[in-house]
Amino acid sequence: MNRVAIAGVGLIGGSFALGLRKAGFLGELTGISSPSTIQAAIARGVITRGTTLEEAAASADVIYLAQPIDQILRTLERLGPIAHSGCLITDAGSTKSLIDAKANECLRFATFLGGHPLAGKEQRGVEHADGDLFRHRPYVLTPSSKPSAIAEQLRKWLTQMGASIVDMTPQHHDKTVALTSHLPQLLSTTLAISLAHSGEDSVTRIFGPGLIDMTRLALSTPDLWTSILETNRPSVLEALRLFQNELSQVVTLFESGDITQLFATAADFSRKIRKA
Amino acid sequence: MNRVAIAGVGLIGGSFALGLRKAGFLGELTGISSPSTIQAAIARGVITRGTTLEEAAASADVIYLAQPIDQILRTLERLGPIAHSGCLITDAGSTKSLIDAKANECLRFATFLGGHPLAGKEQRGVEHADGDLFRHRPYVLTPSSKPSAIAEQLRKWLTQMGASIVDMTPQHHDKTVALTSHLPQLLSTTLAISLAHSGEDSVTRIFGPGLIDMTRLALSTPDLWTSILETNRPSVLEALRLFQNELSQVVTLFESGDITQLFATAADFSRKIRKA
Repeated sequence: MNRVAIAGVGLIGGSFALGLRKAGFLGELTGISSPSTIQAAIARGVITRGTTLEEAAASADVIYLAQPIDQILRTLERLGPIAHSGCLITDAGSTKSLIDAKANECLRFATFLGGHPLAGKEQRGVEHADGDLFRHRPYVLTPSSKPSAIAEQLRKWLTQMGASIVDMTPQHHDKTVALTSHLPQLLSTTLAISLAHSGEDSVTRIFGPGLIDMTRLALSTPDLWTSILETNRPSVLEALRLFQNELSQVVTLFESGDITQLFATAADFSRKIRKA
Repeated sequence: MNRVAIAGVGLIGGSFALGLRKAGFLGELTGISSPSTIQAAIARGVITRGTTLEEAAASADVIYLAQPIDQILRTLERLGPIAHSGCLITDAGSTKSLIDAKANECLRFATFLGGHPLAGKEQRGVEHADGDLFRHRPYVLTPSSKPSAIAEQLRKWLTQMGASIVDMTPQHHDKTVALTSHLPQLLSTTLAISLAHSGEDSVTRIFGPGLIDMTRLALSTPDLWTSILETNRPSVLEALRLFQNELSQVVTLFESGDITQLFATAADFSRKIRKA
């Protein structure tokens, strides 16, 4: 693994590049992004130069797709007939089933290894890229083809960056993040909408730090989320229905019973994920 | 306002005392709590000595009730026949209607001014008390009797501590915090329960920072929350039903429509409360 091309040099793509350098990677790092992003990425030392998808398809050992999901799907279509047989294509998209299916359908010569770093920041863009962004964070890989030497090298570099690699099927990944990421996002969004629609002006003034926590995800812009949610619709709907059922039970219990045990179960789970 | 007695010298009661001192209060500060808490509070310089409710009822200018709600209700019953006519009793309970009704029913001589500082920390106890806890935070007061000189002095001291006083009726307060505090608490709790009940072991490992935000309130212990929720049942149920309706609409829209506008509404609200 000597020539790495990054498509979409934003927070994630830039952090992958900086992480590689920090871990001792001495090969070439090129980027495929808008001219202004390429300029900013070169200035920050994230990549050495800009390139084209065609050049990367012809000569890169690894192409890292760190674009929004809809763009990843389009890039895979373009790479399909041109990415050479020694090339490993990997991605950092937040859902995996559709991307994996698209890769298997399109790529004629290159191999594919889907990925999803469970890491992020509120700020986006290469100017916030951080070589330690993946450190101590889960990094899901969804292998669907045979292991290859180049895929092993990618795993080695991710481990050296401090990421905790977890292998899952694309379907299991998508079911899991529907529960741990997409459901919380929609609840935060729906909470903010509920308060906005409550008709009580005082809700914008009389609140504590808890509401700030619970509406942080609601600040998310729809551009990324629309394609995340739409490419995981069945699992997200299942997670929403699970929550709706649990909430109905909480309401029933609150109307007439004792909710002490609910708080204990919830606190147990919340402590458990903080130890993970 | 020279003699202030604090019943319940924990995070809130201790922070009120430290805030008074920081604002220049030179009067006496006494505390009513367990012997170990009194000792810790004296050691931290929060109060000068322990006292009894009977002594406070006979001689304090202000009695500040910073206990859990169920204890505040019992303390008001005890103070009813003994608190002298020059005494102002105020509280820091998270719901106001029942406390205000109880005070008006019980207090024969003393006057009452309900309060609720919208401030807090994850840690409890006098050892985490902080003279700046109320600074730049809303402090709701729910006056239900005529203004008095001593109530005006309390307002002046709260202002000097940096608190932003907001006057509301107890009912309006309770309706508002049902939406901004009690609903978020129950959603966080229900989210944690949903994930615990999902049957997916992977949910304890594969998650990003968003789940940590969304389950922070779920760490709350039931001891305080049971009495908060039970003393605000009608407004909490109304808030839950509002949320359930909004969530049903989100689900319907997600099944078949475009959720872009929902994200925009939610982000607008979330930005608004961050500017408040």
